[in-house]
Amino acid sequence: MLKTIKTVAFDADDTLWENENHFQEAQKQFCRLVSPWLSSETAEEELFKTEMSNLELFGYGAKGFTLSMIETALRVSENKIPAKAVRQLLNAGKHLLSWPPHLLPHAKEVLMALQGKYRLVLATKGDLWDQQRKLRQSGLQPFFSHVEIMSDKKPQDYVRLMNKLNEKPECFLMVGNSLKSDVLAPMETGAYAIHVPYHVTWKHECIREPNSLHLLKAEDLREVLRFLL
Amino acid sequence: MLKTIKTVAFDADDTLWENENHFQEAQKQFCRLVSPWLSSETAEEELFKTEMSNLELFGYGAKGFTLSMIETALRVSENKIPAKAVRQLLNAGKHLLSWPPHLLPHAKEVLMALQGKYRLVLATKGDLWDQQRKLRQSGLQPFFSHVEIMSDKKPQDYVRLMNKLNEKPECFLMVGNSLKSDVLAPMETGAYAIHVPYHVTWKHECIREPNSLHLLKAEDLREVLRFLL
Repeated sequence: MLKTIKTVAFDADDTLWENENHFQEAQKQFCRLVSPWLSSETAEEELFKTEMSNLELFGYGAKGFTLSMIETALRVSENKIPAKAVRQLLNAGKHLLSWPPHLLPHAKEVLMALQGKYRLVLATKGDLWDQQRKLRQSGLQPFFSHVEIMSDKKPQDYVRLMNKLNEKPECFLMVGNSLKSDVLAPMETGAYAIHVPYHVTWKHECIREPNSLHLLKAEDLREVLRFLL
Repeated sequence: MLKTIKTVAFDADDTLWENENHFQEAQKQFCRLVSPWLSSETAEEELFKTEMSNLELFGYGAKGFTLSMIETALRVSENKIPAKAVRQLLNAGKHLLSWPPHLLPHAKEVLMALQGKYRLVLATKGDLWDQQRKLRQSGLQPFFSHVEIMSDKKPQDYVRLMNKLNEKPECFLMVGNSLKSDVLAPMETGAYAIHVPYHVTWKHECIREPNSLHLLKAEDLREVLRFLL
């Protein structure tokens, strides 16, 4: 099945390096700061509600998430949250924008093994400035012949990317941790996908795993090589 | 001099549509909200200081600006600013992310006159999500054969863009309102530029106008046609 593949695109956050755990850390801090008003569980739900209602305005990434944390804290405390706590949320957001990316096991080894054999592309969703920063700091930039920082990962976004790369769907394979964004969306265009699950997934990205001949599942990144070499 | 030009790239904010005036409106509101602690002039200076110290972390765009407004308000009030005022800053930021772009005079007419004669490119700096939103709402998207949302507009960013477009500097002309980002930076690579000043310029973009054979100055967008047709 994978004989046709010429371009292998990798997601970045939680596929090549850790990401979601940093957001979950920030979220825990948020829950602590609003604990005078809400239980931890309800706080998470309220934050998620705000994030979803702001998605159209903010898009994805740490800056929008930080603004949503502040907005939720103001709302659930009925503007009673102390300014100092707002400052702590802001700092948590800044931390999200500055941690050096920690590579997931086998990330570099897999890219090294595939380079020269496939056109390697990085296809990541999120904040332009922050994703470029993480890519620079990761040391993985030289492996990619094209880097696409996408505002979203809907099927039409993959169609645009493939057009830009002048690549046919049957020659395009996406590797990533999000079933919704990295697997289902490219598959809808006729492309292939390898799902490499991560131990935590943002609620917004959670869906049931589909059955398809266009989908392979890898336990970890190294297993990707089994399908491609 | 302009006989060699094949690709004309346009800046967007304050070149094709109004932008800075919205930021200045938000800034006025910020000054009002911190007026119990600072004069309007000092408030602007303090905000600018925060913006500059956060630039490496936030990059450009309305979300980072909003976080910087909130941070400055907390700092100058020594965490005494009421939560309600923080909420107002947040709303001002949301407004920045939602106003429909108001086209500057002749924007559409100029693009219509140039299309088919040059490869037209949009080269704008800022927040990926928000710039795409404005471009969609502007109705100008169909004029551009390539859209590049850049995290920065330094000379090396233009080199990367020209490589991507497979275009030589002597065939590339940039049209924009910022001397620093739209004029000097591409000129340093050997490309050409037309400066179309806007009545307000963000302090960060203010520099003295250079003298160069690679630079033309237009009073408004329509004058661009005089050099290119």
